[in-house]
Amino acid sequence: MRKEYFPVSEGVPAPLTAKVTRKVRFQEVDMLGIVWHGHYASYFEDARIALGARYGVSYQDFYRERVAAPIRKLHADYYQPLFFGREYTIQARIHYSEAAKINHDFFIYDDQGALCTSGYSVQMLVCPVSQELLLAPPPFFQTFLDNWREGKLA
Amino acid sequence: MRKEYFPVSEGVPAPLTAKVTRKVRFQEVDMLGIVWHGHYASYFEDARIALGARYGVSYQDFYRERVAAPIRKLHADYYQPLFFGREYTIQARIHYSEAAKINHDFFIYDDQGALCTSGYSVQMLVCPVSQELLLAPPPFFQTFLDNWREGKLA
Amino acid sequence: MRKEYFPVSEGVPAPLTAKVTRKVRFQEVDMLGIVWHGHYASYFEDARIALGARYGVSYQDFYRERVAAPIRKLHADYYQPLFFGREYTIQARIHYSEAAKINHDFFIYDDQGALCTSGYSVQMLVCPVSQELLLAPPPFFQTFLDNWREGKLA
Amino acid sequence: MRKEYFPVSEGVPAPLTAKVTRKVRFQEVDMLGIVWHGHYASYFEDARIALGARYGVSYQDFYRERVAAPIRKLHADYYQPLFFGREYTIQARIHYSEAAKINHDFFIYDDQGALCTSGYSVQMLVCPVSQELLLAPPPFFQTFLDNWREGKLA
Repeated sequence: MRKEYFPVSEGVPAPLTAKVTRKVRFQEVDMLGIVWHGHYASYFEDARIALGARYGVSYQDFYRERVAAPIRKLHADYYQPLFFGREYTIQARIHYSEAAKINHDFFIYDDQGALCTSGYSVQMLVCPVSQELLLAPPPFFQTFLDNWREGKLA
Repeated sequence: MRKEYFPVSEGVPAPLTAKVTRKVRFQEVDMLGIVWHGHYASYFEDARIALGARYGVSYQDFYRERVAAPIRKLHADYYQPLFFGREYTIQARIHYSEAAKINHDFFIYDDQGALCTSGYSVQMLVCPVSQELLLAPPPFFQTFLDNWREGKLA
Repeated sequence: MRKEYFPVSEGVPAPLTAKVTRKVRFQEVDMLGIVWHGHYASYFEDARIALGARYGVSYQDFYRERVAAPIRKLHADYYQPLFFGREYTIQARIHYSEAAKINHDFFIYDDQGALCTSGYSVQMLVCPVSQELLLAPPPFFQTFLDNWREGKLA
Repeated sequence: MRKEYFPVSEGVPAPLTAKVTRKVRFQEVDMLGIVWHGHYASYFEDARIALGARYGVSYQDFYRERVAAPIRKLHADYYQPLFFGREYTIQARIHYSEAAKINHDFFIYDDQGALCTSGYSVQMLVCPVSQELLLAPPPFFQTFLDNWREGKLA
């Protein structure tokens, strides 16, 4: 059973998903021959970036619209290691929220389909100058939420 | 108020502490001029390693005693960013536990004394061959716990 | 004109090649919005590893045959920066040599085909225990050289 | 004998120097238990930054004066590995030049005083907007060169 970091409520649009497949790089592996735990933040990010690109809410979109989305929380649970040269898949999901925050969770599987690591991140939408929390999502993000709620994204 | 990731019980020995002071490196800073969130895992580790070295429970001690202590959980809460070239201090604490696991928490302060990031890690003590959880701490670690409980460490 | 780091002699088998295409990751980009110069060592390595895998002379092959191939020289020339999110291609070439060393060169192109960075690495074949230079290539590597010279690789 | 990457001419001011001492971090060490070759770029940079800070020609000084100093060449020669937890010292030297470029060389010693790695970097002084080479050093850098030539720096 996978952990549910963000409990799903009834009537809320289902999460959107993106997957990325990679091979473990030599520099990512430690003295014990396994991926160093700190590198998983970059694995999570690879899938979060792919998801943002897919749905028009990428880093570049935020930058152009002058909204910052700093990471406020990052969490990882490690079950099984990954080894040098082996392929793995990162699944990222974004969870629907009308608050000025963005919740993703992540599930990493090795090339045998075993769940190796899972985790989540929480971002806040803030003004890049004042760093103050936005009272509402910016227009481009609200449009994304509207399309999602209306079932136009898949 | 700092977060208490590991609630302190009465009658349990107080946490042991180590501090490390560093300067933010150029390669750690992102396009926004702040430390990339994924690098904090290495900051936490710098202080955890300093603490292990101080109290005789370092990576090398575990390796010599043929015990592995893989990280099972890592969590970070981000409050304020750190900037290139600025000094910061990482405080690591280890929390007393007789189970075959090791709990650390971490508090990072900038050069003005502001709390920037906090977090925690959980390690399990396992056999490096079978990866099975140890039923009890290994002798060198039990001695460390005994000394701690008897107030011989400070 | 590309730099020729390893002058080609007549009668020597032509270099073997592998290509890898990647996207610049967020964590690789610095305050100026360009890939930090130190990350190119990992880009070179990605293509060197792909080349080794393609021709049966991978890190794992060396490890299994108990030969170490540490890097003795690394060089990079930077012409143009790479930017976050942009695709780039790394071409690695291995140069024929009967000495106990391995010479690679690398050419990185952006998504417009512009040469951004080039460089080379030199590895020595040594005994993993004594660290002494091998007098001749190990059998599996000699077979690779033989096949290469006889035109069986492409 | 150390390599002389930048031949010293008579009558030219002697190089200026800075030293930094560090411990090898866990994440820097590879499957073979030695520092991964690609991390030395960051070691070189730590000492280059310390030298810039010492003599008033830091990254921040360039940024404030609106001059960019991108790295155009990086070279490393590896003689002996560094191991986890061990202390090492990086010596950086800057070489006098009136051209719009900056030459540094680097020498890394382990805690036994053995030379482990050496290398150099070449930076060009360019306009951060046009990326064109400056015809002459900017005023703050010319003052630095003047003071150096007049023996006011040590």
